[in-house]
Order: sequence, then C-alpha cells, then structure tokens
Amino acid sequence: MEPEQKVTAVRRILKYEGGRLHEQEDEVVTERPLTIRVDGEEFATLVCTPTELEELTIGFLASEGMIRTAADIRSLALHIEQGIAEVTLVNPQTRGKDWYNKRFLGSCCGKSRQFYFHNDAQTAKTIPVRPNQLTPEQCLGLMRELQRSSDDFRRTGGVHNAALCTADRLLAVRTDIGRHNALDKLYGHILHERIPLKGKMLAFSGRMSSEIILKAAKIGVGILLSKSAPTELGLQLAEELGITVVGFIRGDAFNVYTHAERIAHRSPEQ
Amino acid sequence: MEPEQKVTAVRRILKYEGGRLHEQEDEVVTERPLTIRVDGEEFATLVCTPTELEELTIGFLASEGMIRTAADIRSLALHIEQGIAEVTLVNPQTRGKDWYNKRFLGSCCGKSRQFYFHNDAQTAKTIPVRPNQLTPEQCLGLMRELQRSSDDFRRTGGVHNAALCTADRLLAVRTDIGRHNALDKLYGHILHERIPLKGKMLAFSGRMSSEIILKAAKIGVGILLSKSAPTELGLQLAEELGITVVGFIRGDAFNVYTHAERIAHRSPEQ
Repeated sequence: MEPEQKVTAVRRILKYEGGRLHEQEDEVVTERPLTIRVDGEEFATLVCTPTELEELTIGFLASEGMIRTAADIRSLALHIEQGIAEVTLVNPQTRGKDWYNKRFLGSCCGKSRQFYFHNDAQTAKTIPVRPNQLTPEQCLGLMRELQRSSDDFRRTGGVHNAALCTADRLLAVRTDIGRHNALDKLYGHILHERIPLKGKMLAFSGRMSSEIILKAAKIGVGILLSKSAPTELGLQLAEELGITVVGFIRGDAFNVYTHAERIAHRSPEQ
Repeated sequence: MEPEQKVTAVRRILKYEGGRLHEQEDEVVTERPLTIRVDGEEFATLVCTPTELEELTIGFLASEGMIRTAADIRSLALHIEQGIAEVTLVNPQTRGKDWYNKRFLGSCCGKSRQFYFHNDAQTAKTIPVRPNQLTPEQCLGLMRELQRSSDDFRRTGGVHNAALCTADRLLAVRTDIGRHNALDKLYGHILHERIPLKGKMLAFSGRMSSEIILKAAKIGVGILLSKSAPTELGLQLAEELGITVVGFIRGDAFNVYTHAERIAHRSPEQ
C-alpha cells in the first residue's frame, strides 16, 4: 500500500469576474517528479500526479519495452519522500538504455509500419477485429461515465483520465496531469492484476496521437474512445494495428475514424 | 526557407449524430517525428506538427540547456523527408548527454529552488517585477486574439498555441500538437530573430505545469497567460522565479495565481 499523497492544494488567488478583481481561495492540482531507477541506474524522470506510483512505474516500463509482464520485475521499492522508484528486473537488460529511444531511420522495420522506435516494433500487437462490439449508445454512455468519474480533480481543471471498460461500464479509471501517465497507470494496473483484455476497450480524455495509439496496441485493446481529436499519423498506425479510433465524443455525437466494423450499425428493422 | 509540409489531411470517417451513422469527409491534424542530431550524435526525437522545424530545433536545444543563443549554433541543416535536423555547435559539448536529464536528488542546488534538472538551474532566470504592466481588459483581449489566431487548425481540434505579446497585441504565434513544442518553436523564433523581451509576455493555450513555468523563465518573460489551469508545483516555481501566472482566462473571467502586482487594479475613481 502506498501512503496517500495530496492531489490538490488550496491557495489564495486573485479572481477577476464581473469586471472586478477580488481575493478568494482556489484548489490547484499537484504534480511531483518521480525518478525511475532500474537495476541501480537512472532510467527516466516523469512529472506526474502523485497517485498509483507503483502502477505508473510498471506501466511506464512496459510502455518503454523494458518489461512485458509484471513478473519481469523482481522488486519494486517506492521512496515517496524522495520521489524515487527503485526497480530490479528478473533479467537485467543487457542493451544500453540509449537503444530504447533510437528511432528507425530508413526502412529497416520490414513490416511496412510507421514505428519510430525499436521497442515499439517489438511490443505493439495487431488486434484482431470482431465486428459489432459496441453500439453508438454504449459509446456515448462510456464517455459520460468517464467524465463523471474524476470528481476529485474536476474542480482543478486540466487533468486526463484513462479507463479500462467493457461495452457497458468502466472497470478502472486512472487520472494524471499527463495523458501518457494516466494511460501508463492504467497499463500498470492491468499488468499488476493480470486483467484479461478480451472484449475490453479504452476510454480516454486526451488527444489520440501516434504515441497514444502505440500504447493502446501495446496494452492490447482494439477500441479507443476519446472526447478529443486524433492525429493523421495516429490514424495510419491505428489502421495498420487494427484499432478502432472513435473521437470527438461530445454530447450525442462522435466520429469513427478507423476500423468502423467494430461499431454496430443499427439495421433499419431494429 | 523550409519547404511547406501539410499540417492537415482529409479522410473519410463515419460520423454519428442525430442518432445515425453516416460517412463524410473530415480534416485531421498531421504529426511527424523529428530527430535532432547534435555534432553527429542523436540527441532526441520529438513528435511534432511539421512547421517551423528550424525554430523548433533552436528552441528545443535552448530549453534543454544545450545552447543559450542562436549564435551558439554553427550550422543547422534540415532533412525534411527523413525528419532529421543536423546541428553542429560552436563549442561542442563535453558533458555526456545523460547529464542533461539527471534530476537533483537531495538539496544540492543551494538556491532553495525546486528545480529537477541541472540544466534548469543553469538557465532559468528570475524576472524582475514591474507593477501594473497589464490591465484585466488587455488580459482578456490577448487570450481572445490567441483563440482567433489559429484558423488552419481550429477545425481539427487538439492543437496548442503559444504567442509572444505586448500588453496590446500578439507579435508571433506558434502552433503544435504538443504544448512544449509550441513554446519551443516560439522560443526558437525569439532567439533566431534576437527579439528583446522587455515589456513582452506569453499567451498560451495549455496547462501551466512546472516544466512550462521553467520554460517561461528560460525564455525570460514575467507574465504567462493561459486559458488552462496551473499546477501547484508550477505555482511554487512561478513565485520563486518572479512570474505572474494568470489562468482559466475564459469569457470575461480569469484567475491571477502569483505576482498579482503586475496586473493593474483599477482604482475606484477610474
């Protein structure tokens, strides 16, 4: 169990409204640096919302291709005060850490895919498409539930949510000031609890860039829902990796960008 | 002059509205990887909106503490097709690149400041406060102008803007899918054109986290305006670095979080 850290702080601000400046109290979201050390060496420093730091560490290492399952970690010790996660692996990495962020320059991938990084090519999975997994109403319902789910944070503005869902409900929600961190916390939770991903999907608050699509493929889900926009490169990857991208889910409307066969068309008779 | 790259692409999507799915054309923002090489060695890969790549490269290297002015760069060659920026420095760096991202662990800074990285402590400047630089009406006006400024992108959703301003108008606006990239492009523009910063301020669309506050301090401006929220750690840094943080600028209201003395209170007589 991690000790609870404060996710918001109260401060006095000057508010301007109705043409006047006045002092009042306001709630502001916190952030803290977390340095992840692997086998005694500094691997990366994230700046994050200080919750679920163990899941964040596991998910980040999986996203970076350092581990594939939680069983690849021998030990994980959190030093909350110093902001350090100390990890030892079952099989210490022999490759230098520079390897992880080297981009493919040229066409060395052999899969005709637009990966940028070696580890992405190794860990992103193509998701088989089963049709009609989700109706439009379920799509709208999941996004409404996601919006409602982060009450602690809603007052402070500017945080991102990522949720693992079935077609009917959210199973787990993670929140962070960083959209990558929110998804990494959820990924860490999935790995830690060994949650099977068949029939599962992701609901997300942030923009669906290529890096987010790659993360969904690594996690192993076939549907990604968001209230935000996708990018063109993200959509190219989603097409190749078999991911259904649904964006701009707002009010009673949304856009299906890729692999629309997973979204159930209502036949005229129904 | 950089050859123009497309910032949006058109694709066929399935749109759900009014209870029905139908096909239509939609515009989507593009992103591309850019690998920055310094003195023949890979330094970093960014994923960005493919505009102003030269400014992005200069601004990114300045943000990372590799250079202080544009004159520290001997040559900069962009290979647009491959997504590579090849930089040589006047004074080649002797420190390994690992040095740049090492976080201070413990209290070794000696300035009682919450920097995480060595390079931040070296490059962030404390900004002297001159009172009453900006009226509330100017504040609202600058943010309205920023919102209007990115017509190319507004249709696609999900991009960030950063602008250099005087109290009365925007001088330069840069846009990117990444909020750090938008600010780095603007920083690169400022360095490249040697724009003096006295009396200048930043208007921004994104969340004001600690990393954004540090970037404003490195650029050397005393006022940061945004329609989004700040974080608590960002505000601690802003207080210490002498930066006025104004957030949630929406409609006719906003919040002043730090160094409110730069925002002009209207006296009752006026």
